[in-house]
Amino acid sequence: MNSGPPHMHRRALLSSLTMIPLLAASLRFTSAVAQAQGDPLPSWNEGATKASILDFVARVTTQGGPFFVPIHQRIATFDNDGTLWVEQPMYVQLAFALDRAKAMVPIHPDWKTKQPFAAVLDGDLKAVAASGEKGLVEIIAATHAGMTTAEFEKIVSDWLATTRDHRFNRPYIELVYQPMLELLAYLRANGFKTYIVSGGGIEFMRPWTEQIYGVPPEQVIGSSIKTKFEMKDDEPTLFRLPDMNFIDDKAGKPIGINEHIGRRPIAAFGNSDGDLEMLQWTTLGATGARFGLIVHHTDSEREYAYDRQSHFGKLDIALDAAAVNRWTVVDMKKDWKRIFAFDR
Amino acid sequence: MNSGPPHMHRRALLSSLTMIPLLAASLRFTSAVAQAQGDPLPSWNEGATKASILDFVARVTTQGGPFFVPIHQRIATFDNDGTLWVEQPMYVQLAFALDRAKAMVPIHPDWKTKQPFAAVLDGDLKAVAASGEKGLVEIIAATHAGMTTAEFEKIVSDWLATTRDHRFNRPYIELVYQPMLELLAYLRANGFKTYIVSGGGIEFMRPWTEQIYGVPPEQVIGSSIKTKFEMKDDEPTLFRLPDMNFIDDKAGKPIGINEHIGRRPIAAFGNSDGDLEMLQWTTLGATGARFGLIVHHTDSEREYAYDRQSHFGKLDIALDAAAVNRWTVVDMKKDWKRIFAFDR
Repeated sequence: MNSGPPHMHRRALLSSLTMIPLLAASLRFTSAVAQAQGDPLPSWNEGATKASILDFVARVTTQGGPFFVPIHQRIATFDNDGTLWVEQPMYVQLAFALDRAKAMVPIHPDWKTKQPFAAVLDGDLKAVAASGEKGLVEIIAATHAGMTTAEFEKIVSDWLATTRDHRFNRPYIELVYQPMLELLAYLRANGFKTYIVSGGGIEFMRPWTEQIYGVPPEQVIGSSIKTKFEMKDDEPTLFRLPDMNFIDDKAGKPIGINEHIGRRPIAAFGNSDGDLEMLQWTTLGATGARFGLIVHHTDSEREYAYDRQSHFGKLDIALDAAAVNRWTVVDMKKDWKRIFAFDR
Repeated sequence: MNSGPPHMHRRALLSSLTMIPLLAASLRFTSAVAQAQGDPLPSWNEGATKASILDFVARVTTQGGPFFVPIHQRIATFDNDGTLWVEQPMYVQLAFALDRAKAMVPIHPDWKTKQPFAAVLDGDLKAVAASGEKGLVEIIAATHAGMTTAEFEKIVSDWLATTRDHRFNRPYIELVYQPMLELLAYLRANGFKTYIVSGGGIEFMRPWTEQIYGVPPEQVIGSSIKTKFEMKDDEPTLFRLPDMNFIDDKAGKPIGINEHIGRRPIAAFGNSDGDLEMLQWTTLGATGARFGLIVHHTDSEREYAYDRQSHFGKLDIALDAAAVNRWTVVDMKKDWKRIFAFDR
């Protein structure tokens, strides 16, 4: 056993995050929980969408009822980009990678002419998107490796604390959907364990998901690059390598869920074709009550409107599957009273 | 949402397990928890080893004290083979693989002459061990693949329900260490989240760890083979492929811990060189109270005595490191009042 003050690394980083207006968002999060004692979902308009959620939760929590699910089996999985926070005009993590790439040009001068990096440096999002999964993986691996996990955590936290989205002129962590924060809190209040299952980087999300969503690091599943364990000057470190380890998207989502959780969820929440297999794995071929939900972005005024043709967060096959499988489809414009905590 | 009776798959499998004397072990587990209100570790003899555990837990749970750790940071990781249950004369999972290999000979007649399978079929454990990690991986991949995850869960459960260890003539799930069951329960009673971090197969452990150790599937980390998501007749399945995905041993343990938990544990428990890096990652280069413990097998009468020369569970470098790093070393013969629940 070693001595000294308690180990507060992640905490210290989060303190630096709270120096931005996040604190206000945090308070609103708490007040959402408080409100849950009345209407648990105050930012949701009344209607079939909201009713389907309340009905499902009532069924699985009614002891002695035909759909009762014991508490340890109440697993709910949430996609992140486009489901819990904004993913337009590009994934937040891609904005991070772009800034990282620009900062790294001095040590990678070849990137100026080499794709997909040249497109990144030109800010040509269409070309970046067109480089496909392969291109995105290459960009992520190159810009997210070469440091320890502790160093990367600090880089992410510092970037989130100092960078603002152009359209809303707010830190990204304020661009989370208030109705979904209420839903997360409502499920947890009903004994659910809430997980994030995202195509985004697991280590990119973990520094802030506990504070923003109430989801601890051990309940975050995402894509990852390989790491290497090394003892350096008697200190153990995990060094991040520029090789993909796992892509937690599409058919990767049920694989990631099985690897991390080892049980099938009973509820899943997504917004794009990348979530199709997670929704299938959660709701199909299983007995008992199951719930699938897709957030459909229909509000270009308060947020964005996109689906079948979108570069990021394309919703096409999964939208058709929703109708067949009776998954709930959220019409953001119609179903959400407000989208962000800062909406009036 | 679908209708029908609650989804009870894992439960049904566990019912089949309880048809064996396991129920008795389960009751003893409960009684261990009850006893925890008096002496939380009744199967541990008084002495420096037991005192080091009690002292650590008192420190990290004393609110306002210099070593207090908030509840969500109280993560404890346990190796399985040789730390929580018997690993001699071979890993239980290897006994399972041997039985699987024998059953699979009709469809793999070449195994009779092909290594390491020929050694497996001859029951030549020395040769199997000599085939090293590469050989073990080959055996595991070949005998653990070719079915869905649900089918594999049933195969494992059925095997554990019907197979007995030769020396003790008991089901393997009774060959768990009573003092360690008490320790798991004691830590949980003090707000710890207890994880298993084993070189063994994650899917081999999950069907029974919740019932035997009180560790739910989402807190089990282990080695894995690749899986493939497929829709079959409108049913989603994960099919097990004969390719290794991850080896959760040695330097793989901190990598697996980081991937699954995303926080460093504050206590780790192992018994072999395979646990060295997990103990380093947990206890070194961190501020605050940390605890490392190694179970040293010193009791050939009640269990086994082995360390530096053992084929399985070799304890050599980690034993030297324990002295340098002041990890607690359990002398099973001296420190444990009884080893198994069935010991008088």
